[in-house]
Amino acid sequence: METMIRKFREAVIKQKAFNYILNVTGWDSETEAPHGSFARRSEMLGIISQEAFRLYVSPEYQEVVNSLFAKSDELDDITRREIKKAKKALDKIVKIPEKEYVEYQKLLSLTQIIWEDAKANNDYDSFKTNLSEIIRYNKLFIKHYGIDNHPYNILLDEFEEDMTMKDYDQLFDLLKAELVPFVKQVIAAEKPRDENFMNAFYPKDLQMLFSNRLMDIMAFDKSHGLIKTSVHPFTWNTSPADVRFTTHCWENQVFSSIFSTIHELGHATYEQQIDEKWDNTLLSGGTSCGIHESQSRFYENIIGRSQEFWNTHFPDLKAVFPEQFANVTVDDIVMAVNKVQRSMIRTEADELTYSLHVMVRYELEKKIFSDEISIDDLPQAWNELMIEYLGIEPKNNTEGILQDVHWSGGMFGYFPTYALGSAFAAQIYYTMKKDIDIEAITKEPNLKKINAWLKEKIHHYGSSKTAKEILKEVTNEDFNPEYYLRYLKEKYTALYL
Amino acid sequence: METMIRKFREAVIKQKAFNYILNVTGWDSETEAPHGSFARRSEMLGIISQEAFRLYVSPEYQEVVNSLFAKSDELDDITRREIKKAKKALDKIVKIPEKEYVEYQKLLSLTQIIWEDAKANNDYDSFKTNLSEIIRYNKLFIKHYGIDNHPYNILLDEFEEDMTMKDYDQLFDLLKAELVPFVKQVIAAEKPRDENFMNAFYPKDLQMLFSNRLMDIMAFDKSHGLIKTSVHPFTWNTSPADVRFTTHCWENQVFSSIFSTIHELGHATYEQQIDEKWDNTLLSGGTSCGIHESQSRFYENIIGRSQEFWNTHFPDLKAVFPEQFANVTVDDIVMAVNKVQRSMIRTEADELTYSLHVMVRYELEKKIFSDEISIDDLPQAWNELMIEYLGIEPKNNTEGILQDVHWSGGMFGYFPTYALGSAFAAQIYYTMKKDIDIEAITKEPNLKKINAWLKEKIHHYGSSKTAKEILKEVTNEDFNPEYYLRYLKEKYTALYL
Repeated sequence: METMIRKFREAVIKQKAFNYILNVTGWDSETEAPHGSFARRSEMLGIISQEAFRLYVSPEYQEVVNSLFAKSDELDDITRREIKKAKKALDKIVKIPEKEYVEYQKLLSLTQIIWEDAKANNDYDSFKTNLSEIIRYNKLFIKHYGIDNHPYNILLDEFEEDMTMKDYDQLFDLLKAELVPFVKQVIAAEKPRDENFMNAFYPKDLQMLFSNRLMDIMAFDKSHGLIKTSVHPFTWNTSPADVRFTTHCWENQVFSSIFSTIHELGHATYEQQIDEKWDNTLLSGGTSCGIHESQSRFYENIIGRSQEFWNTHFPDLKAVFPEQFANVTVDDIVMAVNKVQRSMIRTEADELTYSLHVMVRYELEKKIFSDEISIDDLPQAWNELMIEYLGIEPKNNTEGILQDVHWSGGMFGYFPTYALGSAFAAQIYYTMKKDIDIEAITKEPNLKKINAWLKEKIHHYGSSKTAKEILKEVTNEDFNPEYYLRYLKEKYTALYL
Repeated sequence: METMIRKFREAVIKQKAFNYILNVTGWDSETEAPHGSFARRSEMLGIISQEAFRLYVSPEYQEVVNSLFAKSDELDDITRREIKKAKKALDKIVKIPEKEYVEYQKLLSLTQIIWEDAKANNDYDSFKTNLSEIIRYNKLFIKHYGIDNHPYNILLDEFEEDMTMKDYDQLFDLLKAELVPFVKQVIAAEKPRDENFMNAFYPKDLQMLFSNRLMDIMAFDKSHGLIKTSVHPFTWNTSPADVRFTTHCWENQVFSSIFSTIHELGHATYEQQIDEKWDNTLLSGGTSCGIHESQSRFYENIIGRSQEFWNTHFPDLKAVFPEQFANVTVDDIVMAVNKVQRSMIRTEADELTYSLHVMVRYELEKKIFSDEISIDDLPQAWNELMIEYLGIEPKNNTEGILQDVHWSGGMFGYFPTYALGSAFAAQIYYTMKKDIDIEAITKEPNLKKINAWLKEKIHHYGSSKTAKEILKEVTNEDFNPEYYLRYLKEKYTALYL
C-alpha cells in the first residue's frame, strides 16, 4: 500500500512537471511567439506531448491507480479523492483507441482554420462537414466510455462534475419563464442617454495603466503574477505562485478592457488564493468551470458594475483619462455599464441578457446529442431561438451560429457553465452579504476583505471539494437558481423600473 | 549500422525537444516570470531536467554513440562530426552522478534571483555562499571528468573548443603590452566636447521605436523573431525559426539601448541565417562563443560605430528624437559613441577598453581554478586588477564583482570569448574588405549585402564547422590577434591622434 502510494505520488509530480512546462510554452504561444515559429514548435511539442502521454497511460501507472482504487476505503480522504479523479480520467482515456484519438486531434487542429474562414466569409456550408465529424467523434467516444447515461450528460459532466440536464433545465426553465419577459420590461423602460464618452479615444498604454490600478484595487499579488495583452483575454496559471492573465485594449472601448481585466482578475484571484499544499496533488487549481466563472462574474458584475464601486473608483479612472471623462458623472458610468440590449454576440452581451445567449447554445447542444436535429438545420434553429429568447434575428451566420470558437474545438457541454457561473455567483453573494458588509468594503481602497472571505469559504480548497460540496457548505443549500433571478430583478428594477 | 543511425536520430530529436521546451521556459524566466514563481519553477524544472538527463545518459544512447564512434570512418562527414561531439559531451556527462547534476541545476536556478538581489543591494556577502557552491560543483565536475589538463583549460574548452590558456595568454599578453599604454595615449589626447545630448531624456517607448528601426536596418526577419526588454540584454533561439533578443532602455542613455540592440542583432542575424537543415542534428546553432561574439561585435563596433553608419542613419534617429538632436552633428555622434573612458561596467565600456575589462575576469577565473584565491578575496582582487588595467577603482561591489550575470549561471571560461570575439571580428573584417565595399553598403538603407556575405562565409554552416576551421577557411590564416590591435590602432589613431 505504502509503495503504491509512493509510486502514485511520483507519477503525479511527473505529470505536473510535464503539464507545467507545456503550460509555460502555451503561454508563450498565446502571448508572443512569432508567427513563423509554430511549425517547428508543433514538431517539438508533439514529441514532448507523446512523452507525457506515455507516462500517463503506462501500464505501471494504470496498475497503481487501479490497485489503490480497489482499496479506496483504506485511503485518507485526500488520496481517495485524487484516486477517484485519476481513475475516472484514466477509465475514459484508455478506452479510446490511439488511432481515433490522433485522428480527432488532427481534425480539431484543421477545423480551427476552417471555422475562422467560415466565420469571416459567412459560409456555414464550408464548416458543417467538419462540425459533423467532430460531433460524430464525440458520440463515438461516449460510446467507447460505456457509461450508462445520456450522451449530453457525459459531456456536461466533463466540464462540471455531477451536473446534468436535470440541473441545467431547472436553471434555464426558470430563465425562460421569468427572465425573458423581465428583459422585455427593462428594455421598454430604457431611456436614451448621452453615452458618447463610451467611445472616446483611450490610448492603449493608459488603458494598461488603469488595468494596473485595477490589480491594486483587487489586491492582486504582483510578485506571483502579471498582466499582458492578447486578442482573447484569458487567465493562465501553473500554481498559486504564478498566475497570469491577459486583457485586450480597444482604443474606442475603454470599458471592454476594464471589465475584461476585472473578469480575469476574478479568475486570477481564485487561483492565487488556493493553498499551495495542493500543488503536487491532483486537487490543485479551481474546482470546476462553474465555480471559476462564478468568481470572475462576481467581481466583474456584482462588484465591478455596482454603484459603490464606481463611487469609489471613478476618481481613479478620471485621473488617468481627465479629458475623456471631463463631463461625465458616476451615474452616467453606472447606467452605461449596465445598459441592457438585444444583441447578437454573446461575448459582448450585457449582464442581464448574457445567460439567454447561453440558453440558445444549451438547447441546441441538447438536441445534437439527443439526435433530434440535423447539422443542416442548426443555423435556422439558432436563429429561431434568438428570436424566442432575445427578440432579434441574426442577419447572417457569422453573427449567428458561427460566432463562437467552442464547437470547432470540440467543446460541447462547456457553454452552460457560463450561465451556471453567474447563478453560482448570485447564490454565493446572498450568503456573503449576511457575513460581511459588501457595500462598505467596496468603498475601501481595495477589496482585500472580499478576497479574504472568498479565500476562506472557497478558494483555499483548490479542487479538494467539488462544486456541489462547496456550494452546499458555503450557502447551506444545494444549487438554487432562484437567487440568480432575484439578484437580476433587484438590480435591474432599481436601475430601470 | 543503419539501425544505429536511426536510433541516434531518434535520440537526438528527443533531446532537441527537451532542450526546446526548457529553452522556452528559460526565455520566460529571463523576460517576465514573476519573482515569486521561481521556487515552484525550479522544483518542476528539476523533474523535467532529470527526465531529459536520463534519456541523455541512458545505456541505449551510450551504446549507440559508442558503437557509431567506433565506426567513425564509415560515417558520412556530418554524422561523424555529430558523433564526435556527442561522444565528447557524453564522456564528460556520464561521469557526473545524476544527483549532483540535478542539485546543481536547482542551485543555478535559485542563484539567479539571489544574484539579482545582491547586485541591487550591493551585498556580496548574500551572494558568496551560492557562488562558492557553484565553483565547488564546477571543480567537482572537472575532477569527475578525469581529463589530464588544467581545470581552467577544461572550462575554456567548453565555450571555445580547443582554445587554451596558452592561446588566451597570447592575446591578453599582446593587449597588456600594447593596448594598455595605447589607451593611456588616447585618453591623454581627448579634448572636452559638448556631449550633453548623450544624457538628454529619451522616453523608453521611443527608444524601442528606434530599436525597431534598427531591426529593419539590419534586415531582421520579424516573422521569425521578436525584441523585448530585460535588465541584461541577450539573444535567445531554439532554431532559425524563432530568434529573440532583448535590449534595455535607460531614459538618459539612448546609445546604451542602441548599441545593445545592434549587438544582439548581430547574434540574432547569425542565428537567423543558419540553414534549417541542421535543426534536427547536433550541428545546429552558432559554432562557438568566440565566433558568435565576433558577429555581434562586428555589427556593433565596426559597422555601428562607424562614420558611414551615422552619415546614413542619423536622420532616422533624429526623426524619432527631433528635439534631443536639434543641435547635434553627425561628427558629434561619431566622437561621442567612440569616446574612450576609464569606466567600471564591462557592458557599457567603449570599444577600445572593452577587452581590458575581460582581462580582469580572465585573470580572476584563472586564479579561482588554480586554487590561488578565496571567495572572500575576490572583490578586492577585482578592484586591484581594475586599477592595473584601467586605472580606476570600483566604488562598491555592485559596480565591481557583482556586475555580471555569468558566474551566477555557472559560466566560467565564458568571458575570455568576448575578447576573442572582437579579435575574430577584426580578422574577418580585413578579409571582408577585400571582397565587398563595406563603406558603400553601409550607405544603403539596410545591411542585407553584409548579411549575405556573412551568411555565405560563416552563418549558414551552423556548427558544422569549428571556429578554427571557419577562421582558417574565411581568412586563410589561423587566429592572429595582431589584426585586432591593428584595427584598434588604425581607428583610434584616426579619431584621436
